Amino acid sequence: MEEEKVLTILHGAVIITMDEEKRVFKNGAIVIEEDRIKAIDQSCSILSEFSHLAHHILDLTGHILLPGLINTHVHTSQQLARGIADDVDLMTWLHGRIWPYESNMNEHDSYLSTLLCGIELIHSGVTCFAEAGGQHVSGMARAVELLGLRACLAQSTMDYGHGLPSSWASRTTHDCLQSQKDNFEKFHNTSQGRIRVWFGIRQIMNSTERLLLETRDAAKQLKTGIHMHVAEIPYENQLVMDVHKVNHGTVTYLDKIDFLQNNLLAAHSVWIDNNEISLLSRAGVKVSHCPAAAMRMLGFAPVREMLNADVCVSLGTDGAPSNNRMSIVDEMYLASLINKGREVYANGTTDPTALPAETILKMATVNGAKSVLWDDELGSLEVGKKADIVVVNPSSWTMVPVHDCISSIVYCMRTENVVSVMCNGVWIMKNKKIINVDEEEVILKAKEASVELLKRAGITLPTRMNVI
Amino acid sequence: MEEEKVLTILHGAVIITMDEEKRVFKNGAIVIEEDRIKAIDQSCSILSEFSHLAHHILDLTGHILLPGLINTHVHTSQQLARGIADDVDLMTWLHGRIWPYESNMNEHDSYLSTLLCGIELIHSGVTCFAEAGGQHVSGMARAVELLGLRACLAQSTMDYGHGLPSSWASRTTHDCLQSQKDNFEKFHNTSQGRIRVWFGIRQIMNSTERLLLETRDAAKQLKTGIHMHVAEIPYENQLVMDVHKVNHGTVTYLDKIDFLQNNLLAAHSVWIDNNEISLLSRAGVKVSHCPAAAMRMLGFAPVREMLNADVCVSLGTDGAPSNNRMSIVDEMYLASLINKGREVYANGTTDPTALPAETILKMATVNGAKSVLWDDELGSLEVGKKADIVVVNPSSWTMVPVHDCISSIVYCMRTENVVSVMCNGVWIMKNKKIINVDEEEVILKAKEASVELLKRAGITLPTRMNVI
Repeated sequence: MEEEKVLTILHGAVIITMDEEKRVFKNGAIVIEEDRIKAIDQSCSILSEFSHLAHHILDLTGHILLPGLINTHVHTSQQLARGIADDVDLMTWLHGRIWPYESNMNEHDSYLSTLLCGIELIHSGVTCFAEAGGQHVSGMARAVELLGLRACLAQSTMDYGHGLPSSWASRTTHDCLQSQKDNFEKFHNTSQGRIRVWFGIRQIMNSTERLLLETRDAAKQLKTGIHMHVAEIPYENQLVMDVHKVNHGTVTYLDKIDFLQNNLLAAHSVWIDNNEISLLSRAGVKVSHCPAAAMRMLGFAPVREMLNADVCVSLGTDGAPSNNRMSIVDEMYLASLINKGREVYANGTTDPTALPAETILKMATVNGAKSVLWDDELGSLEVGKKADIVVVNPSSWTMVPVHDCISSIVYCMRTENVVSVMCNGVWIMKNKKIINVDEEEVILKAKEASVELLKRAGITLPTRMNVI
Repeated sequence: MEEEKVLTILHGAVIITMDEEKRVFKNGAIVIEEDRIKAIDQSCSILSEFSHLAHHILDLTGHILLPGLINTHVHTSQQLARGIADDVDLMTWLHGRIWPYESNMNEHDSYLSTLLCGIELIHSGVTCFAEAGGQHVSGMARAVELLGLRACLAQSTMDYGHGLPSSWASRTTHDCLQSQKDNFEKFHNTSQGRIRVWFGIRQIMNSTERLLLETRDAAKQLKTGIHMHVAEIPYENQLVMDVHKVNHGTVTYLDKIDFLQNNLLAAHSVWIDNNEISLLSRAGVKVSHCPAAAMRMLGFAPVREMLNADVCVSLGTDGAPSNNRMSIVDEMYLASLINKGREVYANGTTDPTALPAETILKMATVNGAKSVLWDDELGSLEVGKKADIVVVNPSSWTMVPVHDCISSIVYCMRTENVVSVMCNGVWIMKNKKIINVDEEEVILKAKEASVELLKRAGITLPTRMNVI
């Protein structure tokens, strides 16, 4: 006799499916069997068909269900560095703060940092993230395993460049590649398939061409993705033009060496021209737009133009020293505001109709899933897909009155409204309580570790105001 | 014998005073006597001097105290309209949604709307706000009285312009002025002095010169302020240039007719040139910068330039249909991000050092107090000033680790971290519970009223996606 599978019904909710027909159920229900969605329909149909089979039936009247949000660019290793690089210029940011911090991290720091960051991700409705690249994939993997999240992890690799911390400067191209292959071997497809391992390249200014090409080939062979910071600042483009003799920046060069592939996730992509947008589109490269970090440090990415050219653009938070809120809920709000305002910069006047709410929501779900090469199982609430689900309670002072459910999710919702989160068919937060770790304990340990780490790295911050 | 006054001590907290010496106590205490701050110093000194006299002693170890935040541009009457005008062009926004909504509001709607908005303001640490101008000052005043907030209320007046709703079009200049004088008579300095009444002018395109000049004179005579939307869109400036034969926009014209005075609070002031910045500075005009609304609908205000020219710039949320979050906590975060990013628009490259955290915090406190002409009693935690205080709990996943207390308040803090709020020496929120109204009941009534109001106003919203 076949073993009985656990069946859960969530019903009575507004369900924003994000499926191809853009269905929104006013009073919908979802049947979850183990880790997958078995059925989705009007509550009355689902209840009459499945009630007698269900082990758990949850009435979510008054709530809104969304596909788990996907954060496609986050440095989980940088969570302990929140606040260490605020209001400083880019060179101080990199050489004075981030590199000393990151190069002095140990595996346990990375574990704690990812735990703390993961708690914030879950509270903001994220079920899957793409790690931008830290140093200790094993630490990240332990945290993701424990939290119950889904992730594409990556090591950040650099085999070239001035001013690198000594422990990094000694790494060869071979070291960089081998260490990533080892990570892949150890962690890819672990934690009930929730963890995938990607290749990571920090950025063009710290990569030899050999690292780029061998990474491309290794990722292709292992059928996985590559995560890389691309075209972040004008200086980067200028350097690439000078060194590699191309007529525009990083994207043009990456095209020239045939690095642009559909498994590349290019973070930021701020300083790109129309031709480069076409190159990204043609190659099927995915772009992670990080509105907060871009406004703070980089500039205005041509998001509307990329979307118009059919580039798959998703949303990321970047790392805590670049943002400092690690919340896709806030990034949705920001992405809309900033890209409406950006029209003044691009075309002389704002356009309040640019990047409407449904586009933003698509970026955080469907496009997120495509960006992490997982859209066969993620990004929408559909039969057969993974049960990654966010439960929103809109009946609070933050959102009431809800005249327009879709725009309210994008423009009014705050992390306060995210009440429960399911990943892979399992609740990882319920009624605002993180299920698998003790939040207070993680916070306490993270505080201690971060103070120690800053000491070890020799980072001291100037005092603001007159502290007595 | 003199009646004994109630004495409260708050101690053990980090206190960001925002006083002229920029003092931050690492372990400070405040003594509150009735509605005012009687003493502020190190915890040990305060406890030894005042403990035996105090009626209430509250240990706030681990918390941060701030002066009550000041929201200098908020349409409390528009709270019921949140979500009715998302992603639409400016003309639809104004003529199709906001005017029909506002002109169909009754006094009770305004009361409920201000209650709902006020709840959001308190949760985001606001103790004082400047109403941008609605129709029913009595409704606003009832809500403010009940909530325990502090406010500068204003009626929005219009005596000119095309397309005005019929109930407004019939109002004469005299009606507009008389009604404001009546409001002043009835409500100014009521609610233990927490309510002040200002004059309100909607905007230049709906004002005759007579309304402007008589408002200026009446406000001067009554020693109160004027709140007006200024230089919001390029079209406004163009119209002013055409009609009034000046060489730039609204600010130039207002200077010409001697309307720029130090009791004018100019909201937005986005489309102004360097000469106009000088005019504002010379006249002592205050500017309310509303980053979210500006990004969504108006453009980039020259905030850095205004601050450099010693214009007093404070922060506002604008109204719910323009933003949609009514949170100064979020506006602080946005003001920093947007004005760092704006440098790309103004100067070709971002400047992560622009508008640092201490500047932003000053805008939300000290400059807020100056903007509402109340800096003799508000804006900083100092002996003799009103006890308007925000209690922040930074020990949560939203802010940890706090390496830089000031920047963490500006860049990490969310409304979730605001735990208690005192206004005029009285707790109006404690441990996240609004004290003077039943939140649930307000939410319920506001929902009902807003649906009724939209029906009455004939506003229907197009459906997004495929609702079934």
